[in-house]
Amino acid sequence: MLRIPYDELHDTLRCVLLKTGFPADRADRCARLFADTDRDGVYSHGLNRFPRFMETIRRGVVDIHAQPERIAAFGAIERWDGRSGPGNLNAQQCMDRAIALSREHGIGCIALRNTNHWMRGGSYGWQAADAGVVGICWTNTMQNLPPWGAKEARIGNNPLIIAVPRSEGHVVLDIAMSQFSYGALAKYRMLCEELPVDGGFDSEGNLTRDPAAIEASQRPLPIGYWKGSGLSIMLDLVAALLSDGKATSEIVPDPLSETALSQVFIAINIDQLMDQARADQVADAIVEHVKTAAPVETGGDVRYPGEGTLCTREENLRLGIPVDAKVWDAVRAM
Amino acid sequence: MLRIPYDELHDTLRCVLLKTGFPADRADRCARLFADTDRDGVYSHGLNRFPRFMETIRRGVVDIHAQPERIAAFGAIERWDGRSGPGNLNAQQCMDRAIALSREHGIGCIALRNTNHWMRGGSYGWQAADAGVVGICWTNTMQNLPPWGAKEARIGNNPLIIAVPRSEGHVVLDIAMSQFSYGALAKYRMLCEELPVDGGFDSEGNLTRDPAAIEASQRPLPIGYWKGSGLSIMLDLVAALLSDGKATSEIVPDPLSETALSQVFIAINIDQLMDQARADQVADAIVEHVKTAAPVETGGDVRYPGEGTLCTREENLRLGIPVDAKVWDAVRAM
Repeated sequence: MLRIPYDELHDTLRCVLLKTGFPADRADRCARLFADTDRDGVYSHGLNRFPRFMETIRRGVVDIHAQPERIAAFGAIERWDGRSGPGNLNAQQCMDRAIALSREHGIGCIALRNTNHWMRGGSYGWQAADAGVVGICWTNTMQNLPPWGAKEARIGNNPLIIAVPRSEGHVVLDIAMSQFSYGALAKYRMLCEELPVDGGFDSEGNLTRDPAAIEASQRPLPIGYWKGSGLSIMLDLVAALLSDGKATSEIVPDPLSETALSQVFIAINIDQLMDQARADQVADAIVEHVKTAAPVETGGDVRYPGEGTLCTREENLRLGIPVDAKVWDAVRAM
Repeated sequence: MLRIPYDELHDTLRCVLLKTGFPADRADRCARLFADTDRDGVYSHGLNRFPRFMETIRRGVVDIHAQPERIAAFGAIERWDGRSGPGNLNAQQCMDRAIALSREHGIGCIALRNTNHWMRGGSYGWQAADAGVVGICWTNTMQNLPPWGAKEARIGNNPLIIAVPRSEGHVVLDIAMSQFSYGALAKYRMLCEELPVDGGFDSEGNLTRDPAAIEASQRPLPIGYWKGSGLSIMLDLVAALLSDGKATSEIVPDPLSETALSQVFIAINIDQLMDQARADQVADAIVEHVKTAAPVETGGDVRYPGEGTLCTREENLRLGIPVDAKVWDAVRAM
């Protein structure tokens, strides 16, 4: 495994985007979102995802020049159209707008339609927390998960992010509604490892930890079985309604053509109701209570959402960002 | 099983509450919330829960005269203090207030502290949907679930409700963060039935479907393992921060003394952004797509959140509300 300095990763991606025609400021922001994703250890959606992102640009799925546009507004809620622009830039801008609305109204809500894959959803949670507000956001996706009781994919894994600012380290949850993504299943399969818990059904309809069996049946599990299935449906419903955008049922079920997603960004400004010192007291006490729980294994660690990210970030900034040498070479040659 | 007319159930509960000292209008509202819960088939939190509710009044945990009070406000977000009043009345009033704020600002958010158990959380989702708005609400609870990696309870099962209005039947999700409640575990045990899926760990730390083994180990599972554990922590954090109320870690871990809960009620008014006919089109298409998925078992049914409730409601209003004869006699004698 190769480790490269953060700035080199960011600059390399930025140059590729500039060559592709991105305006300078957008190339910089987009490259930073990818580089930050690797910095934080979400290797599935950073550099490794970049070639696929470039492919969607070549195919015309992503329009690098399109800027999101506000198409309706009422008080603290607004509807924006992403106009097929880069999903990460659109999402970042919409979370920024939700934050601005929350400074004015206490809470702000942006519904975004016609956008593209936002890459790492957690980015927009960290963004909100860095701005000192509570952030909640989610996206719908193409259908990739059977609803509970069905054997064919009809719902999305619809990632949900909730972020709370805290001086000693934000608390940020970033979860998809599937127990394991197809990417995770492939990773376990290639390592010849079993999943740590049941991840779906095999072709006979039995719950299994065998990643290849789930890839074959195309029946991964929603989190909490019927519960995650229901939650996925609700997130899709609210996103499609508020944005008047496409629902999962209308999105092309092909990873390279998946587009016209619907997303929701909510920011809640706690500043007006509580100063940061008191907020830290509340959050620290909750984190402390969780972390001091007796672990299952002696010496084991009980973690709060986002804790692992901060460790990885520190390590990667210190030692360099780990990259796959082949992908790194391919991107540098772009 | 006895079935009694809805009005008789409501009136009986109302009379008991009047005798206890509830003012007439509050007795009526509180009795209706309990009766509606049985009408909708959530028998754990209707009549069967009523004696325990009365016990918390006798113990002084619930103050029947206390009215919630607004203690801070900024734009579309408000903080209320429940002053230890009846949890269901407090919750209903706060969702009403969130709905009113959403009519003014597009979105409204109420954080409530010092409240009591809200009984069926779904009630406030149906309330929002009946008012034509999207409703999202959650509560924290006493610690009753080990966080992922721990063997002792440190987080709550923190029910989360999301509701979307729809002319042909609202779509309402009402889920706790535990895969099965202790009430559900007891029910399976008494029926000598296995759980349909793993529900927790036995005392040796193996995943199990044996309800008694989970009751013994006190290690029920969060939905989606680490994911539901993280979601529970986030819901507690946001509720405690926005309300400046107690976190799960501070709530007395005893079902009969559990009090001073923190809750969040969010309403989103879609009227200003989309007319009901278009909203129905969007929601109907999503529901239809889910319902027409090929079922696992031939002739099987794939359901959307809330669908079962509507069937049960219709049946119970037609045939009478099923009650446990012993509990019914006990409540009538109160």
